Amino acid sequence: MIIALKPGVSQEDIKKLASDLEKLGVKIDYSQGSNQTVLGLVGDTTVVDDEALKANHLVEKVIRVQEPYKRVNRMFHPLDTVLDFQAGGSKAKIGGGVFSVIAGPCSVESREQIIEVASAVKKAGAAFLRGGAFKPRTSPYSFQGMGCVGLDILLEAKKECALPIVTELMEISQLELFEDVDVIQVGARNMQNFNLLKELGRCRKPVLLKRGMASTMTELLMAAEYVMAGGNDKIVLCERGIRGFDNFTRNILDLAIVPALKKKTHLPVIVDPSHATGLSWMVPAMSKAAIAAGADGIIVEVHNDPEHALCDGEQSLTPAVFSGLMDTLRKYAALEGKVI
Amino acid sequence: MIIALKPGVSQEDIKKLASDLEKLGVKIDYSQGSNQTVLGLVGDTTVVDDEALKANHLVEKVIRVQEPYKRVNRMFHPLDTVLDFQAGGSKAKIGGGVFSVIAGPCSVESREQIIEVASAVKKAGAAFLRGGAFKPRTSPYSFQGMGCVGLDILLEAKKECALPIVTELMEISQLELFEDVDVIQVGARNMQNFNLLKELGRCRKPVLLKRGMASTMTELLMAAEYVMAGGNDKIVLCERGIRGFDNFTRNILDLAIVPALKKKTHLPVIVDPSHATGLSWMVPAMSKAAIAAGADGIIVEVHNDPEHALCDGEQSLTPAVFSGLMDTLRKYAALEGKVI
Amino acid sequence: MIIALKPGVSQEDIKKLASDLEKLGVKIDYSQGSNQTVLGLVGDTTVVDDEALKANHLVEKVIRVQEPYKRVNRMFHPLDTVLDFQAGGSKAKIGGGVFSVIAGPCSVESREQIIEVASAVKKAGAAFLRGGAFKPRTSPYSFQGMGCVGLDILLEAKKECALPIVTELMEISQLELFEDVDVIQVGARNMQNFNLLKELGRCRKPVLLKRGMASTMTELLMAAEYVMAGGNDKIVLCERGIRGFDNFTRNILDLAIVPALKKKTHLPVIVDPSHATGLSWMVPAMSKAAIAAGADGIIVEVHNDPEHALCDGEQSLTPAVFSGLMDTLRKYAALEGKVI
Amino acid sequence: MIIALKPGVSQEDIKKLASDLEKLGVKIDYSQGSNQTVLGLVGDTTVVDDEALKANHLVEKVIRVQEPYKRVNRMFHPLDTVLDFQAGGSKAKIGGGVFSVIAGPCSVESREQIIEVASAVKKAGAAFLRGGAFKPRTSPYSFQGMGCVGLDILLEAKKECALPIVTELMEISQLELFEDVDVIQVGARNMQNFNLLKELGRCRKPVLLKRGMASTMTELLMAAEYVMAGGNDKIVLCERGIRGFDNFTRNILDLAIVPALKKKTHLPVIVDPSHATGLSWMVPAMSKAAIAAGADGIIVEVHNDPEHALCDGEQSLTPAVFSGLMDTLRKYAALEGKVI
Repeated sequence: MIIALKPGVSQEDIKKLASDLEKLGVKIDYSQGSNQTVLGLVGDTTVVDDEALKANHLVEKVIRVQEPYKRVNRMFHPLDTVLDFQAGGSKAKIGGGVFSVIAGPCSVESREQIIEVASAVKKAGAAFLRGGAFKPRTSPYSFQGMGCVGLDILLEAKKECALPIVTELMEISQLELFEDVDVIQVGARNMQNFNLLKELGRCRKPVLLKRGMASTMTELLMAAEYVMAGGNDKIVLCERGIRGFDNFTRNILDLAIVPALKKKTHLPVIVDPSHATGLSWMVPAMSKAAIAAGADGIIVEVHNDPEHALCDGEQSLTPAVFSGLMDTLRKYAALEGKVI
Repeated sequence: MIIALKPGVSQEDIKKLASDLEKLGVKIDYSQGSNQTVLGLVGDTTVVDDEALKANHLVEKVIRVQEPYKRVNRMFHPLDTVLDFQAGGSKAKIGGGVFSVIAGPCSVESREQIIEVASAVKKAGAAFLRGGAFKPRTSPYSFQGMGCVGLDILLEAKKECALPIVTELMEISQLELFEDVDVIQVGARNMQNFNLLKELGRCRKPVLLKRGMASTMTELLMAAEYVMAGGNDKIVLCERGIRGFDNFTRNILDLAIVPALKKKTHLPVIVDPSHATGLSWMVPAMSKAAIAAGADGIIVEVHNDPEHALCDGEQSLTPAVFSGLMDTLRKYAALEGKVI
Repeated sequence: MIIALKPGVSQEDIKKLASDLEKLGVKIDYSQGSNQTVLGLVGDTTVVDDEALKANHLVEKVIRVQEPYKRVNRMFHPLDTVLDFQAGGSKAKIGGGVFSVIAGPCSVESREQIIEVASAVKKAGAAFLRGGAFKPRTSPYSFQGMGCVGLDILLEAKKECALPIVTELMEISQLELFEDVDVIQVGARNMQNFNLLKELGRCRKPVLLKRGMASTMTELLMAAEYVMAGGNDKIVLCERGIRGFDNFTRNILDLAIVPALKKKTHLPVIVDPSHATGLSWMVPAMSKAAIAAGADGIIVEVHNDPEHALCDGEQSLTPAVFSGLMDTLRKYAALEGKVI
Repeated sequence: MIIALKPGVSQEDIKKLASDLEKLGVKIDYSQGSNQTVLGLVGDTTVVDDEALKANHLVEKVIRVQEPYKRVNRMFHPLDTVLDFQAGGSKAKIGGGVFSVIAGPCSVESREQIIEVASAVKKAGAAFLRGGAFKPRTSPYSFQGMGCVGLDILLEAKKECALPIVTELMEISQLELFEDVDVIQVGARNMQNFNLLKELGRCRKPVLLKRGMASTMTELLMAAEYVMAGGNDKIVLCERGIRGFDNFTRNILDLAIVPALKKKTHLPVIVDPSHATGLSWMVPAMSKAAIAAGADGIIVEVHNDPEHALCDGEQSLTPAVFSGLMDTLRKYAALEGKVI
């Protein structure tokens, strides 16, 4: 961290500021120019509060050289994080040379529906089953998910089809219900629900953390840092589109964050082309592009009857289209040296 | 709601779709053109799910004429909502011809600090004291607020200075601690924490709902609808800046939402110029502009020692500047026929 | 400008880089820390290309302390720029304690229309007449303005009503037609039409420069710098709304740029509430807010028959509403110590 | 186009409005519901001005079903547009099953530089040479390109290396200099320079039209419509990143616009990963993703000495990296059934 002081700051003031900073455990590297003093902070600067520094009347500019995150930082943990899963006799992975496909309906709607979709996506090669039991909906009058019953149905599907499951948690108190869930999804709207993140740091389950609608890459990594700071290092990051000014897609899929994240962090990164575009016919193109951009997987909506889906039918693939897509994706994954 | 069907849809298909819609309680007004059939939905269309309709293969376009919110809609509740408060011998209001000023530090830091600031802002004419005990911070390594102890200190200040208090709740389980809090603040990052909103709908305390960083006006109103749908109609909406592409301010203060909200809803609307700009020297100009735009109040950060503030010092006013600002604001409020 | 070099850069490399920079006329202030060397550039750093520096393999971070603009910078020109106008017997000003109201229709449509509107806005107290002869329209099939004929009509109105006129120039070759125009408007879409800006730098007419739809404050000031670098210092900056993710207004009126610009530059700053909101009923609230934010004026659309306007009728005020608004604005301007 | 009238509009008013619309050449399809009248406009609705309609006091909502563009619309021109080029003995194509790679430096800097880069990119398999002679730069103090001399050098390179060239035009008056240029580039900042677009419509040269920084897909297509309306149908669209709230890349590469454009228009679509990301190390990942998304080509910056580039060095590939990238891209193109 570099702190450029204003011209004309007295030696006494500099000493006092430096001493305050040293109390936080960082070392100061003084750079006294003829015009201006520049302080270089060496050590763990994640403890230094940029905002407080910027409010200081001695300070002209504050520049972070080091990232504000530590545990999720690839610099301190160069090897890729790889997550292993087991469900029935099946094994699955996220990271480590695998391109992981998570597929299923937006919401669990019935036992029949979920078993039908689960069988179909498994047959097509998906490694995980997704499905929402608790649904975050913009309107209080929209279908809010089947809740606990939906979760039970999902767990039945897990057993019957031997597929690990991914489902969204909306509140700390639901955590006890998620014992047999394989990956706990944190939705975009909860990415900065810091109490929830802290609680997930205390549990030992893999967390799928979706980028918030207007979150910067650094904010996403800081959200993951909340979880890792609590002791849970099983995190998968997910780009799901950010809010933009046009409406030909539901959100803007920001694929460049994939290589950017792979450089900054050791955590696996997946892409959600369904929520990003909101249009099922775009999902194949954006899934291929996600592989090409270096993603470790996708999470994609598949519904046996999109037109009667209780939510997000417009963005769901039919099982037949999904199966064809999987054949294509295998070829793209091979070019990246990955297996599906 | 207007549903334009695709050209060439059969009468049978139309009937089936219409019958599905009528089951939701709406009436259908058929408009059969030579080229295309258009359905007009009459009645309470808040129950109709736009997304499901858009996924339907018969449908070309879906257009909401009526808003998707009901209880917060001024159309169904023309009179302004006014909230009344009492603390010690003092009375205060939000709405109803009053311009309400909520002032105080970003975080509670100590008993001395909060009493000093509370006395100063009261003397200057603030009607409410703000201060954070539980703080949402981007980094897990930043000061997270004093928690319960901070809340106790705030309640002492309430008693000592006879000022109703506004403070942020971050999680449902904290609700029991907020018994004596006058206004529960929901932060921008929690605006779509639907479980929290539902819980606040069940309580009877006034809720200050901040607009999310990338929330549309409709999403803000739908979040308020969650609270009102639960039975709590004591809601204050707050514009606090949205995320933008420039960085000369922390966020973009979208003042035009003030007249827009006043037209669409009966709920009072206030503005947070401190978080919106992030720069204390801009707060006076933006506070005056908020009155001119029609706001019912502002929530503004005041700190007795901004440079040593544990958070957001850069955007805090000193008590002296705040006092001068209040004198100016009274003149602007008078032009709008409001009293401070 | 501060250049933080990467750790371990050799003295020889540093010398070479420094020597390249000194050739641009800046002095180097070396700050040799134990870990890292930091170069402070003193002098006119507007000539240093940040991008080229960032591509240099020795450089870790480049931080501009000084702004990249010079002639428009208040630091080098502390006194406010004030523009004086004369039309017939009338005098008008932009800047210098005046709140200047520029009013008129979006497009010139006929002699009768423009004279009628001009008389009405003059009577109500507007100091300038606006009206478009050459119109930038999204569709090639929309009305493109009356062109030269429109310009002639506008000049007649100038003479008849003794009002200086403001009208948009779309292309360098039109410049010769603008001899008797008082203020040449550069539209938002042309804010970075650098050839046009250079040409306007060579002429001596006042230029009204509208902020681009997605332009940063610095980009707006750099666009003005293009004009001033050519020798023309008669520039008025105009906030007209930026593109955002919501659609309850046409654009987002970013009023905080007003105090920000007034701090950074000596040029006058006005606001266009008509294009910013796109809705006539919002214009009064946003006009008042513009004064409160510190603007030097507004440019507002007034049409004698908004419903039959050939463009932008939805955002035009009637003469009657405009006249009432002017009465209100005088009171707000008085609070700011300005006259209309 | 669907026009929903307000409830209670009189038959007389409806007739008058309908008659006004019929004068524009469209047919009206009346849909009289019990509550509301809906007009369906049949025929060429590109001539109808949405904005004027929205300002009409009879109208509640206006919904475009048909797109506002005509000549660029795939609906009226189902077959892909393919452009053919010839330079020296070489032939090249854009569209028609070819993945076209346009490569070269940001700016022409010297004869040696451009010939060296041109030879290198040709050897690696690029089909076109890019290079700027006239450069749009944010600062008037930055290098503005070599101008006419640069253009001459570029034309020499064209001859020497038998590569068709792509270079940017900034102003109508430069058009006569571009006689031997193969593709005229219109930069993002000029996408809505309508006078320039009209002029390009009158010439017969291929135009590479870059998406504006905050342009919607429809605005991009309307800009192309300006060119086609003038009679020039040789247009290539280019996604080059849009402005966003984060800064880990220079812009946000909005790859989903590729399949969206391919659906809406018959024009070829290419991607500029260099300007979109601003970071050379991201260019390979985003180039592969562009192919996967369905693009017809890329335009990419290659510089023989990026660190000493006079502009945009940070985003330029070295010839060696470019050559390796081309080998990879051939494999991706093959999966899409395209040749490079």
